[in-house]
Amino acid sequence: MRLTDEQVATFERDGLLVLPGLFAPGEVEAMLARLPRLFDERRPENFREKATDVVRTAMGLHLRDDVFAAVVRDPRLVEPARQLLGVDELYIQQVKVNAKEAFTGEQWQWHYDFATHHHEDGVPEPLALNLHVFLDEVTEFNGPLYFVRGSHLDGPAPTALDVTTTSYPLWTVTGDVVGPLAARGGLVCPKGPAGTVLIFGDTLVHGSPPNMSPWPRRIFSLILNPVSNAQTTFARPDHQHHRDFSPVSAG
Amino acid sequence: MRLTDEQVATFERDGLLVLPGLFAPGEVEAMLARLPRLFDERRPENFREKATDVVRTAMGLHLRDDVFAAVVRDPRLVEPARQLLGVDELYIQQVKVNAKEAFTGEQWQWHYDFATHHHEDGVPEPLALNLHVFLDEVTEFNGPLYFVRGSHLDGPAPTALDVTTTSYPLWTVTGDVVGPLAARGGLVCPKGPAGTVLIFGDTLVHGSPPNMSPWPRRIFSLILNPVSNAQTTFARPDHQHHRDFSPVSAG
Repeated sequence: MRLTDEQVATFERDGLLVLPGLFAPGEVEAMLARLPRLFDERRPENFREKATDVVRTAMGLHLRDDVFAAVVRDPRLVEPARQLLGVDELYIQQVKVNAKEAFTGEQWQWHYDFATHHHEDGVPEPLALNLHVFLDEVTEFNGPLYFVRGSHLDGPAPTALDVTTTSYPLWTVTGDVVGPLAARGGLVCPKGPAGTVLIFGDTLVHGSPPNMSPWPRRIFSLILNPVSNAQTTFARPDHQHHRDFSPVSAG
Repeated sequence: MRLTDEQVATFERDGLLVLPGLFAPGEVEAMLARLPRLFDERRPENFREKATDVVRTAMGLHLRDDVFAAVVRDPRLVEPARQLLGVDELYIQQVKVNAKEAFTGEQWQWHYDFATHHHEDGVPEPLALNLHVFLDEVTEFNGPLYFVRGSHLDGPAPTALDVTTTSYPLWTVTGDVVGPLAARGGLVCPKGPAGTVLIFGDTLVHGSPPNMSPWPRRIFSLILNPVSNAQTTFARPDHQHHRDFSPVSAG
């Protein structure tokens, strides 16, 4: 599993990279089959929508289920992360499924992940990579992620903490910042069948509309961060940022 | 201005019809140029977003501005409506610009227009046509309309009155109704440059996501209804359903 020079250049220019067809339908099915039991659990790792009590995010999955314990070590995720970062020793920062359920999945404001990783966890540098595996086909209708292409190029954008709009406090990027960035790089919305992999960086501005469709949009997300860039404060619970900094071994 | 047999068949099957490039850029500019003055007015014809006070809909425009007074008689709108309905005598039911401003334009729940026309205005039959002219390019990002294709084929779907979610009370179609209709016909999202015309019927289920983008999405909307099918109750003000039932003369 080795990215081409062109793929690396795309990631560096755009801040994201789409790898179609990386996981087979049977592998996706195996992950989906574990979700009903995991989502039924009442525990802090399961975050629920403000309005509907439906699970929006289920975290710590590699510690709760053997299928996901294997996925976080999968070379198709770990090897591209190592290559893009030029670092071999990466630890598992966060493991989750983001579920935007049919009709109920809420909007996510414009934000980037490093704002949280830095402010909440004391991560020094914006190096972490977010590796997504689509568990449903992602279309324009079921709450896909929107990215501001190239919004990482000038370093971390200014942020503001929003504690009212959505189900969770979020360091958001306001319109006066998004506007010029989007005018320069445009918005992109990666779509594709289940099994598609999407990789994006820690300062890439993104958000997503509500899922108004009758179809769920579930995405597996693994965040890997260099061991040398580990969190330095520990305000958030382990499932939001794991404290085991041992390097992940692929395969 | 005569629709082809294929266009008529498409409208009858899908419930909507897109006519690209019908209005020239200069004509769109002439309409856009009138909006700042019209939107600045504090009057009941201007509906504002609940959260931001920004104008979401400005109604009665043909009675407030000479450019829009000409557009409501434009043969490119009136003639297709006559042809699709097989009726010559149509009156101007409603004339507005729906503006989903950058970052602030809100979600519209799933609904269809006849529910309001019937419940609020006593319109007997779902014959009215909604004729849109895109005043901005409509993309996947700036709050485009989503339609449930063919959702008109079984007649008006069941509805429920929602008075809490958005800036206005709306007869909505709930998920248990949208789901089977969307499974049969799919969702469609007409996009295109400014000047595109979109025609849809009175029972076609539609909605739209919020406008998260930095770009406005303004649409001119003319509703024409057969004089023989005019409103029978008069609970709403004139600008929401005009009481002048004289047939519109094209050109």
